Amino acid sequence: MDGYNVAVVGATGAVGRTMLKILEERNFPVKRIIPLASSRSKGQILKFMGQAVKVEEAKPSSFEGVDIALFSAGKDISLNLAPEAVKRGAVVIDNSNAFRMDPEVPLVVPEVNPQDIQKHKGIIANPNCSTIQMVIVLKPIHDRARVKRVVVSTYQAVSGTGLEAIEELKLQSKQVLEGQNPKPEVYPHRIAFNLLPHIDVFDETGYSLEEWKMIRETKKIMGDENIAVTATTVRVPVINCHSESVNIETFEKITAEQAREILASAPGIVVMDDPKNNVYPMPAYLTGRDEVFVGRIREDFTVPCGLNLWIVADNLRRGAAYNAVKIAEYLVENKLI
Amino acid sequence: MDGYNVAVVGATGAVGRTMLKILEERNFPVKRIIPLASSRSKGQILKFMGQAVKVEEAKPSSFEGVDIALFSAGKDISLNLAPEAVKRGAVVIDNSNAFRMDPEVPLVVPEVNPQDIQKHKGIIANPNCSTIQMVIVLKPIHDRARVKRVVVSTYQAVSGTGLEAIEELKLQSKQVLEGQNPKPEVYPHRIAFNLLPHIDVFDETGYSLEEWKMIRETKKIMGDENIAVTATTVRVPVINCHSESVNIETFEKITAEQAREILASAPGIVVMDDPKNNVYPMPAYLTGRDEVFVGRIREDFTVPCGLNLWIVADNLRRGAAYNAVKIAEYLVENKLI
Repeated sequence: MDGYNVAVVGATGAVGRTMLKILEERNFPVKRIIPLASSRSKGQILKFMGQAVKVEEAKPSSFEGVDIALFSAGKDISLNLAPEAVKRGAVVIDNSNAFRMDPEVPLVVPEVNPQDIQKHKGIIANPNCSTIQMVIVLKPIHDRARVKRVVVSTYQAVSGTGLEAIEELKLQSKQVLEGQNPKPEVYPHRIAFNLLPHIDVFDETGYSLEEWKMIRETKKIMGDENIAVTATTVRVPVINCHSESVNIETFEKITAEQAREILASAPGIVVMDDPKNNVYPMPAYLTGRDEVFVGRIREDFTVPCGLNLWIVADNLRRGAAYNAVKIAEYLVENKLI
Repeated sequence: MDGYNVAVVGATGAVGRTMLKILEERNFPVKRIIPLASSRSKGQILKFMGQAVKVEEAKPSSFEGVDIALFSAGKDISLNLAPEAVKRGAVVIDNSNAFRMDPEVPLVVPEVNPQDIQKHKGIIANPNCSTIQMVIVLKPIHDRARVKRVVVSTYQAVSGTGLEAIEELKLQSKQVLEGQNPKPEVYPHRIAFNLLPHIDVFDETGYSLEEWKMIRETKKIMGDENIAVTATTVRVPVINCHSESVNIETFEKITAEQAREILASAPGIVVMDDPKNNVYPMPAYLTGRDEVFVGRIREDFTVPCGLNLWIVADNLRRGAAYNAVKIAEYLVENKLI
């Protein structure tokens, strides 16, 4: 077999670069790689499998002959170009928020609802990063004890915003340490040594779009409209890897020990839970990993059936690029492409 | 009137220094200030009301003639010396965990349960910092709608650990920015650009002592054993001011708008809640303030009566020194001393 023509839209961004890296690492059967970006990044040279490849401007004609198009260039680009790619015969795996809640578009975490991939009509949506790592953990608990309600508070790294936010955190941290007063550019306020309870835009309910994503996407991915989620999403001065404090009420009782066993045997999860020996997941140490790490597993004694968990994952990989490539692999393995 | 002899035990620490500052700022009627510390800090010179005062070693005889002793030097010092101070006629306001859950010792937040001060038998306990800022917000909501259950996740600043932790965060941040690999000293792991879901020691339930403090102290301060609290406490790379994501279930319904009104008219609270204009409390901007700041006030749509809140306060002041001095002021104003 001679492989597939794979386009990566947004190839010069934080997620796009990670997509290229993961395609390489996993030896995805790429015949030709087509890195696409905005006109601003046109002509940039990226490395892929030891070869220099030139970034082209993403436009409708870019998708001629493309088999799989991985999009991660924001909602507007996806709205404009994903239908053009589909029209030209590509299957689009889209990391933006453009199509996630479209009933015609499967929203997929391969460890949770791979079967939904088969219903696609050209576009498959990759969920929000903070949702992905949470549903991977919710799924085995739901299968065993039925999840009733989730209260989640997030601690999200700046890499989720993009490369410019990583630079801003570093620059501002240096400025604060030197006694200067940093000027925010990427975020509305300083992020260095600070917390912003603000991710994406707010609506009239007072919730942010990031919070709504966690609420709505969880139901769709889990295939259960009755799973009640409430969320508070917070940006923290961490470079990469999102963390989440998750309180779960279930219909049936599971103990902390049972939860540990269930999670340890579930796909894509590593239980890291020995707090007395200072063992729990921490974002600074998990960059580059594709698993979801769970620790601080405790019974919540305030309800008959409740658990508290602490979940950490590399948001660029597990929460974005790796999830997208896993969907592409499913298409290939199941001869859906 | 010629004032009181006030001892500050742990005067050279982060909270002790703040106690001295707040006694000054509030013109507390101090006749003589007696800064006490361990033998290590003996002889250090501190400023108080423009005068240089010499730090003495804290020992039983230090409390001869002392009217009020503010302790913030850790549990062991309090266990050893607070009874000695009481024996010599002082009223002790203790910021450690030594006596908080002792049924003979009032645990007081002056905005919540000032009446408990009158029951003291020599020692009054100052609650844990993360508990104080939460109960100040819970109290007016409880009075209006009865609090049933609280799920809290904290984002706690390093100043709560002490001055050495502030230095460690700064040093490690500089090292990470310079590409070095910092060696943790104060915390078991690096705190710069990282999160530690670990505050104080863990017990066999998997909860940390900090989490238990929030659970148990809330009931005692609020005077209601039925308020169910579950907590996940996390150290974040922020210098000062603790933040909390708090989910509250009440027995009676209050809307977000009603909650905003109730909180805005409650003592010691500032509502800072206009997220569409990027207005919400943030720790980097609230050092030096004595109020508790609340924002992101939203209804939780997953339960009939629920709210989500984001609470920030200066943990050294509101969560420790200011609370202690307010207790001392209550003693003076009510002629209890």
